[in-house]
Amino acid sequence: MFEFDLLAQSGRARAGVFRTPHGDLPTPVFAPVGTGATVKALTPAQLHELGATLVLSNTYHLYLRPGDELIRDLGGLHQFMRWDGPMLTDSGGFQVFSLSNTRKIDGDGVTFKSHIDGSTHRFTPEKSIAIQENLGADIMMALDECSPPLDRDYNREALDRTHAWAARCAAAKQRGDQALFGIVQGGIFPDLREESARYLTSLDLPGYAIGGLAVGETKEQMHAMLEIVNDILPAHKPRYLMGVGSPEDLVNGVLRGVDIFDCVLPTRLARNGAAMTRSGRLNMKNAPYARDPRPVEEGCTCYCCSNFTRAYVRHLVVSDEILASVLLTLHNVHLLLTLMREMRVAILEGTFEQYANNFLANYPAT
Amino acid sequence: MFEFDLLAQSGRARAGVFRTPHGDLPTPVFAPVGTGATVKALTPAQLHELGATLVLSNTYHLYLRPGDELIRDLGGLHQFMRWDGPMLTDSGGFQVFSLSNTRKIDGDGVTFKSHIDGSTHRFTPEKSIAIQENLGADIMMALDECSPPLDRDYNREALDRTHAWAARCAAAKQRGDQALFGIVQGGIFPDLREESARYLTSLDLPGYAIGGLAVGETKEQMHAMLEIVNDILPAHKPRYLMGVGSPEDLVNGVLRGVDIFDCVLPTRLARNGAAMTRSGRLNMKNAPYARDPRPVEEGCTCYCCSNFTRAYVRHLVVSDEILASVLLTLHNVHLLLTLMREMRVAILEGTFEQYANNFLANYPAT
Repeated sequence: MFEFDLLAQSGRARAGVFRTPHGDLPTPVFAPVGTGATVKALTPAQLHELGATLVLSNTYHLYLRPGDELIRDLGGLHQFMRWDGPMLTDSGGFQVFSLSNTRKIDGDGVTFKSHIDGSTHRFTPEKSIAIQENLGADIMMALDECSPPLDRDYNREALDRTHAWAARCAAAKQRGDQALFGIVQGGIFPDLREESARYLTSLDLPGYAIGGLAVGETKEQMHAMLEIVNDILPAHKPRYLMGVGSPEDLVNGVLRGVDIFDCVLPTRLARNGAAMTRSGRLNMKNAPYARDPRPVEEGCTCYCCSNFTRAYVRHLVVSDEILASVLLTLHNVHLLLTLMREMRVAILEGTFEQYANNFLANYPAT
Repeated sequence: MFEFDLLAQSGRARAGVFRTPHGDLPTPVFAPVGTGATVKALTPAQLHELGATLVLSNTYHLYLRPGDELIRDLGGLHQFMRWDGPMLTDSGGFQVFSLSNTRKIDGDGVTFKSHIDGSTHRFTPEKSIAIQENLGADIMMALDECSPPLDRDYNREALDRTHAWAARCAAAKQRGDQALFGIVQGGIFPDLREESARYLTSLDLPGYAIGGLAVGETKEQMHAMLEIVNDILPAHKPRYLMGVGSPEDLVNGVLRGVDIFDCVLPTRLARNGAAMTRSGRLNMKNAPYARDPRPVEEGCTCYCCSNFTRAYVRHLVVSDEILASVLLTLHNVHLLLTLMREMRVAILEGTFEQYANNFLANYPAT
């Protein structure tokens, strides 16, 4: 359980399999986000058809609504949302720290107000683990502090909290069928990132995440931090880059040794009427699509592109139809899952460098 | 083409098959409504899985957005929304006459303002047919006036327009692969309903609708009108009761000789968080469902009830998740389509009277 088998490498890029109680998870992998126990706009059946293997849910949201104890009493999150594959929950920290005006941090934890009803709550490392044990995901995350990436003094101070909390999470954990991942922080500062990767490695956890990236730093800074951290983290443990999910960031992450990604981007863009493609983003509301008989992305084999025209999808978006969100979510998630599968095959076949170069050469600069 | 084969009768109830260019349509049948070229919240694949056979779209909405000529240029409505089964479009009259403050009627047609942008438009019988020929549904409807059911003078006057317009629609029609249905009007007045049924029968159309019911009259009045009209309409033509779709109204309609129904009720209720069941309506927001481990309707075989608890569905509804609309739409449409299939089998097997009595005895009074 929770073994990570490394099957092939190509430069820093890795193809592997992570063994979980809900099945083997081939990597590299992208996890669609099911914030409130649902990947927005999709049924679990559609997720299976898309070939999704890992789904993320958010501890902060589920703790507040419908409540982690309710989910536990109904058989756990897998049963509640009927996702029978591998599942990951975050610690709740990222959402709580995002509530910058209504939360107060101390060495022991963080006190915050609910975005739903303003009620006051408190997360400690032990509380986050207790909630995540009630939810019962295969992978759970240590409570960490995602700090502003460019502020060295703040990162120095926050990193000590993050490390102390990771150790407390590991000590608090009771269930044997869940893997606790630690989260490397340290902003854009190489020495802090190194220190964080080394400290968390010393805890000998079954996997490691890299947090605090894609939150305001440059792409070059993100890439540099990934290389520094992944050269320290143990090769036989999976590495998870949190909150990253644009096509070019996925390719750049795999190039630098990342195994697991998650992001709301494909589902959120879809609900805003935008399609992700291998040649950049399309705003489906745009007038030129009104009579366009082509699929959203030519050559794409998803349900949306196999059946419908841009003209139809634009009509649905302009008319604010639910089916617009459904079809664009199907397309966007299909694209990211397909990219991950293609990268995995390329790594296994030894052609990944060429694949990544081709992909990035054709992807527009952002 | 457009033959209606009557296979069995049980009292007034009928089981038949209507032959259309997009396949045989077993009756009695309920048509989910796809107002804007989409049955809200469902993909065509999900409609097929539900066993939907006939889908309705609205001429008024599609004329305004995206435009019937655009749909024609993209291959017609079947191709546009990828529904390859039988399809029906209404005339646009019902929506236009509902715009009571912004429309003006005369003997030749009706002038109205768009609910989208306030622009002025005009429907005549010929224009309605031209739009519906651009859309290309298998069944199209004559332009009629749906008048307040209790106002005799108004109904007397409107009925003459409705009849003159039906004849003009029949004369204007050009395509041979679409069946034009006339619409019986006359409010709650037996003599007007009789006159209307006789006049429209004289036009020898391939099918007939009964309009102007379920718009404010009592159930008893609706039932009386159905019996009067269906005793006059020719037995070898399908009969379509427009805008009716609660479970008890479907059973009562079939009992009185109706073959085809449509209604937004199952899809609209779903988006409002309500489930239709054989024992009445459930508001899934209600607090007692928060920890209810049962399916929405016990014994139901739909995707929602086969997989999810009331607790989960309530959580989705309370959280305003798209999946709430999807799952409840799947359930509600499944229920109505299943009822129609059960009624058809009962008519064919000669047990319909018992089936209807049982159903109505268990359905709560409304």
